[in-house]
Amino acid sequence: MMKSADISPTTFVWQEILEPVRSGLEQVESRFHEKLVSSVPEVTDIGQYLQVSGGKRLRPALLLMTARMFGEIQSPAVNLGAVVEMIHTATLVHDDVIDGADRRRGRPSANSRWGNHTSVLAGDWLYMQAFRLAVEERNFHVLDILIELTQQMVEGELIQWGMIGRLDITQAGHLDLIYRKTACLFSACTRMGAVAAGKSAGQDKNIEELLAIYGTNLGMAFQLVDDLLDFTATEEVLGKPVGSDLREGKVTLPLIHVLERCTPAEHALVAKVMEERSFQSVAWEDLIELVWRYEAPQTVKRLAQEYAGKAVQAIESLPAEGLDTRSRETLAMLPELFVHRQY
Amino acid sequence: MMKSADISPTTFVWQEILEPVRSGLEQVESRFHEKLVSSVPEVTDIGQYLQVSGGKRLRPALLLMTARMFGEIQSPAVNLGAVVEMIHTATLVHDDVIDGADRRRGRPSANSRWGNHTSVLAGDWLYMQAFRLAVEERNFHVLDILIELTQQMVEGELIQWGMIGRLDITQAGHLDLIYRKTACLFSACTRMGAVAAGKSAGQDKNIEELLAIYGTNLGMAFQLVDDLLDFTATEEVLGKPVGSDLREGKVTLPLIHVLERCTPAEHALVAKVMEERSFQSVAWEDLIELVWRYEAPQTVKRLAQEYAGKAVQAIESLPAEGLDTRSRETLAMLPELFVHRQY
Repeated sequence: MMKSADISPTTFVWQEILEPVRSGLEQVESRFHEKLVSSVPEVTDIGQYLQVSGGKRLRPALLLMTARMFGEIQSPAVNLGAVVEMIHTATLVHDDVIDGADRRRGRPSANSRWGNHTSVLAGDWLYMQAFRLAVEERNFHVLDILIELTQQMVEGELIQWGMIGRLDITQAGHLDLIYRKTACLFSACTRMGAVAAGKSAGQDKNIEELLAIYGTNLGMAFQLVDDLLDFTATEEVLGKPVGSDLREGKVTLPLIHVLERCTPAEHALVAKVMEERSFQSVAWEDLIELVWRYEAPQTVKRLAQEYAGKAVQAIESLPAEGLDTRSRETLAMLPELFVHRQY
Repeated sequence: MMKSADISPTTFVWQEILEPVRSGLEQVESRFHEKLVSSVPEVTDIGQYLQVSGGKRLRPALLLMTARMFGEIQSPAVNLGAVVEMIHTATLVHDDVIDGADRRRGRPSANSRWGNHTSVLAGDWLYMQAFRLAVEERNFHVLDILIELTQQMVEGELIQWGMIGRLDITQAGHLDLIYRKTACLFSACTRMGAVAAGKSAGQDKNIEELLAIYGTNLGMAFQLVDDLLDFTATEEVLGKPVGSDLREGKVTLPLIHVLERCTPAEHALVAKVMEERSFQSVAWEDLIELVWRYEAPQTVKRLAQEYAGKAVQAIESLPAEGLDTRSRETLAMLPELFVHRQY
């Protein structure tokens, strides 16, 4: 949910960024809509409900922008754009079931409207529909990427579910989870952007690899900042309550950083919040104070910055010849933009 | 779960039937086992737990037997045999979650051991792993078949979930459900048996189509008898309690037949069982009496017989030249065997 004063600097920049792929994104949108129709009405209902509730279409935008570097947007990029948005939507549905989330983007979540079972199966159907659309491309390389991706994501959901309510998560374990949850899909988007533009075989293999590295590092930076904003933003700016992760039993990097350094008494404080899944005995302000005392925001931001740097480096390593300058510059700018975003 | 006196006529016949594909089935088994390994231990655990608890491997056997008609079993048939068993296993896991089933094949179900969330995600992982293995075949036609199949199955799960506890299901609606739950997979097995043996393109297209018809009708007959045995068999022979479907809130064809013909008082009797999900106020014997009074078993068996007849007809329509006689005769005999099985 966006706040009412919607013309913040970030939104403005984001609108401008999308300009070169706007018509491609519109095609993705209608392809997505057209492919949501199932012979089971609940599936269509859930799909359309989720499509309408929107999101920024960040993943298809990333795929299209990558393809745009190599020329005009063609049909394969549009199809694959719809594929990645479908996969993303499927994981949101499953995540909300696992988190027991009531709301998503300011509306009741699918699980609170249709129940857990129906939502899980609708999520499965969306995964399969994404594959159906991908198979239509008749490109095995794309299917290899997608199979690897979706298994990583489902394994990520499983790992996350197993870690719910636990404080003993390590930084390495959490970064693996972020990779599976977010970065892996970002990477698939940028890789498939290259593949859709025909840049995947022979001497272009290097191009796909660089774009995979770009996507992975961009995704890591994006998710680290996402986790951080859950602590440092305000509800007004974020458009949703802060501290949601912890209330859902999820410990993210800012808190992992604290837990690895704090006193037993401070540890007990965090454990209390986790136990209650609310800020009842422990005030939100006290938790935030702890997070800042151990300089967790600075540390997490620094790490995000490192990932962003690697992403930029990958883009700059692309052979510049024949590339669309504007798209390339946009992709080179995106990591910084993500690190400094406020919501 | 088999009863202890395991050498019943049906078991004996089944063992003999499998003879020509025995070594193929052993290869499927080790391929299946080898592909169950995930980087998330729970997935591997659930997969291996389910593999050990067994089942008859009916679906890979069907696929191999079909391929065997056209020559020796080759690697694609083995791979696809593992694929269909994986898909079958995935749907069992999901079904047990949806049914809230405690047990499966005489052991605790995955959901009662690992919980609903983990089981659902492990089922998803198995679906994806099946696709991974299928993609390795580098055959788009196989992928088209599998995508169509898995969506039909997931839609079937959704429809079944929506009908739980309801008495207003029609015969047509139920037959559609049986198709999605069972016959569609049987059909995919026999089709892919043909595809694995290279019988799918050009003038062989007709062969694949006949085998699709065979598989569909065989599956319909199989499931109708399955549903019937839940009423007419004994727990001793069946190896599990009778009346399970109704206790899980599922109305199958024998009862649909009764409900469409019975008096309001008899209808209320069935409704009572459904409401209580047990035979507390209404005795099992009284329900069975009702089922026999309206000749539901005879009617359902007659319908199963019709499907079996169509299956046999499809096999007999195959161009006989060059076909392995024993495999073909086995496939021609299978429908009758399924109709007359006692468990």
